[in-house]
Amino acid sequence: MADQYVQTPDGDVPAALPSLRWDEPPEGPVLALLDQTRLPSEEVELVCTDVPALVRAIQTLAVRGAPLLGIAGAYGVALAAARGYDVAEAASLLEGARPTAVNLGYGVRRAAAAYREALGKGASEQEAAAAALTAARELHREDAEASTRMAGHGLALLDELLPGGSHRLLTHCNTGRLVSGGEGTAFAVALAAHRAGRLRKLWVDETRPLLQGARLTAYEAAGSGMAYTLLTDNAAGSLFAAGEVDAVVIGADRIAADGSVANKVGSYPLAVLAKYHHVPFIVVAPTTTVDPQTANGASIVVEQRPGLEVTEVRGGMSVAPLGTRAYNPAFDVTPPELVTAIVTEEGAISPVTGDGIAELCARSRQVTIS
Amino acid sequence: MADQYVQTPDGDVPAALPSLRWDEPPEGPVLALLDQTRLPSEEVELVCTDVPALVRAIQTLAVRGAPLLGIAGAYGVALAAARGYDVAEAASLLEGARPTAVNLGYGVRRAAAAYREALGKGASEQEAAAAALTAARELHREDAEASTRMAGHGLALLDELLPGGSHRLLTHCNTGRLVSGGEGTAFAVALAAHRAGRLRKLWVDETRPLLQGARLTAYEAAGSGMAYTLLTDNAAGSLFAAGEVDAVVIGADRIAADGSVANKVGSYPLAVLAKYHHVPFIVVAPTTTVDPQTANGASIVVEQRPGLEVTEVRGGMSVAPLGTRAYNPAFDVTPPELVTAIVTEEGAISPVTGDGIAELCARSRQVTIS
Repeated sequence: MADQYVQTPDGDVPAALPSLRWDEPPEGPVLALLDQTRLPSEEVELVCTDVPALVRAIQTLAVRGAPLLGIAGAYGVALAAARGYDVAEAASLLEGARPTAVNLGYGVRRAAAAYREALGKGASEQEAAAAALTAARELHREDAEASTRMAGHGLALLDELLPGGSHRLLTHCNTGRLVSGGEGTAFAVALAAHRAGRLRKLWVDETRPLLQGARLTAYEAAGSGMAYTLLTDNAAGSLFAAGEVDAVVIGADRIAADGSVANKVGSYPLAVLAKYHHVPFIVVAPTTTVDPQTANGASIVVEQRPGLEVTEVRGGMSVAPLGTRAYNPAFDVTPPELVTAIVTEEGAISPVTGDGIAELCARSRQVTIS
Repeated sequence: MADQYVQTPDGDVPAALPSLRWDEPPEGPVLALLDQTRLPSEEVELVCTDVPALVRAIQTLAVRGAPLLGIAGAYGVALAAARGYDVAEAASLLEGARPTAVNLGYGVRRAAAAYREALGKGASEQEAAAAALTAARELHREDAEASTRMAGHGLALLDELLPGGSHRLLTHCNTGRLVSGGEGTAFAVALAAHRAGRLRKLWVDETRPLLQGARLTAYEAAGSGMAYTLLTDNAAGSLFAAGEVDAVVIGADRIAADGSVANKVGSYPLAVLAKYHHVPFIVVAPTTTVDPQTANGASIVVEQRPGLEVTEVRGGMSVAPLGTRAYNPAFDVTPPELVTAIVTEEGAISPVTGDGIAELCARSRQVTIS
C-alpha cells in the first residue's frame, strides 16, 4: 500500500507551511510534507498515511535535504507504529529509500530504537508508538536548535575569515528551512549574515538537474529579503575569476570519518574552483551528518538517479535526442584537503582532519543507538 | 524590416538540411538557416530575406557557433547587396549582432570589402553583389577545409598526448557541423577519433542555460553513431575525480593575442578541473577565431544575455520565483596557462604563447582585409 494525497492550504493548516508536520486528523495520524517538487509555483502538502507513501515522497524528492530526511525517517517509523504496521519492515524500507544521506538512517534507527526499547520495558504497542513519536519530535527539536547553533558558529567563522564584514557568499543546492527542522545549514549561515547586516550578496547556483537552487533557495532567499542573484552552475567560474565570491557555503549529505564530504553534484567542482582562487570553501552540517562507519570518500555510496532527469527538463519536455544515455550521479565527494572548514552545531574545525571530526562527534549530544 | 519565414523540408530542399544555405528562389535570393533553437525535436529552416531578419536569427541563436557566424555574416552582406539594400549599414548591423564571436565581424568585413573593391574597380552594383557572394562562398569553402585540417591536427595531438589510443573525451557546448561550413572544430576532432576507431567515449556536457550540448551535440553524436553519454555540467567534476576523462576538447568564440580563450560559459571551470586533475585541455578553432586586436583575456567583451534564459527552462516554464535576478554571461575566459594546446587548421601550439598564436596566424591563408 502507498497512500498519499495532496492538500492545498486552507483554514486547517498554518498560513506558512512548514517543511513537514505530524498531524492527527480523525482518520488517523499522518505525516504532511510541503511538496518541494511543486515549489516555487505551488505550495501544497503531500500527506502520507503510510510508509510506502513516504518512501515514494523521499525518492521523488518531495521531501529532501539531509537533516529533514532524518526527521522524516523518524516520523515515518512513528507513523508505522501508530498505524499498527510492522515497524521493523517500515524502518528497513525507509533506511533504503536513498543511499547517500546518512541522516535518514540515523533518524529511522533512533525512532525504531525508542519503539523497541519501550516494548522491551513492557510497554503496550500504543505506548511504544508514542515513544517513537517522542523520539521523532526530539530529533525535530534538536535539529532546529542545531540550525541556530550552526548559524552562530558559521557567522563567527565568516567574520574571522573575511574581515571586510560584507560577505558575498556562493551556495549550491538548497540548505534552508526546507531541509531542516529549523532554518537549515549553509543557508542558515547566510541568513545570519543577512540579519547581522553583513551579507552583501548571495549567489545562488541553479543546481541542475533538479534546480533546487533556482526553485528552492531563490524562494527562501526571496522570502527572507536577501540580496540574491541566480546563476547557472556553469557561470560560477566567471564569478570566481572576477573576484566576486568571498566564500562558498554548502551543506552535506554524508561526511566520512576522514572529513570527505558527499554533497549535491556540483559541489566538488566548486571546491576545486575555490581552491584555485584561494576562496574559503565551508561545509555546514549537523553532526548527525557524520558517518563514522564510512572511513573515507571512496567508501561513500553515491546514488545514481534516472537519466530522464537530465534528458528532460521540468515539465517533462525532452531536450536530448531519443535514446540518449545520461550519467546522473546525485552527489559528488569532496576530499578534506579541499574543505576549508566544517561547521557543526558543536563548533567549526579547520583544517579538516579525522581527529577533528571525531572530536566534534564526541562533543555532540547525539543520542547513541544501541 | 525583418523578414523571415519557416520552411519545413520538402522536395525543394536536401534531405539532410545543411546548417546554412544560400538559395535563389524566384522571389529573390535568401539565406536559409537550419533553425537550431528547434533541434533536436524539429528540423526546419528559417529563411531570411533581409539582414534585420538575419540579425534576429543570430541574436536568438537560430544560427550560432563562431565559424558559422562568420559565414552567415558574409552571406548576410551578400544578401543585402543582392537585394539592393545599403551594404555598409547592413554590415554594421551584422557586426554588432553579437559582441564576442570575432568570426562574425571577420566574415562581414570580408564580404563587404569584396563588394567595395568591386565597386572601386568600376563594377556595377549587381557585379559588386556577385563579388560579395563569391567572397562568402570562398569563406564557406575555406571553413569546410579548415574543419578537415583541424580534425587531422587534433587527432594527431590526441594520439601524441594519450598514447593509450582509446580516448574518452569531454566536450562542452556544440562544435560540430552546426557551427561550421564543414564538420566543425572540437567535435570534428572527436569525430576523426571515432572514425579511426580510437574514441571510447564522448562525454557531452548539457551546457546550460541553452542546452546546446543536450540538444545539438547529442544530436550530432547520435547521428554519427558515436558512443556518447550526456551529463549535467555539474557532473563533470565527478568524472574527472573518477579518472574517466582523458582530455577536454572545446571550441572558441574569440582567442586573444596572448592565447586567452573566450568560449561558452562553463569552459573555464572545466579548464580549472582539467588542470587540477592533470588532464589535457585542448581548444580547437580556426585561425579566423584569433583576434590580434584583443591583447588579452581582460580585453574580451563578454556578452551578457537575458536572465530569462536562466529563470525559465525550455518551453518558457518559470523555475525561479517571480522577480529573481540572474547573472547570465554567455561566455567565460580561460587564460593561456590553463590551455594545454590550441589546434587550428595551420597546426597546433603547445604551450600556448602570444608568439605561437602570432606564428599560426602568419601561417594562415586568412585573407587580409584593408
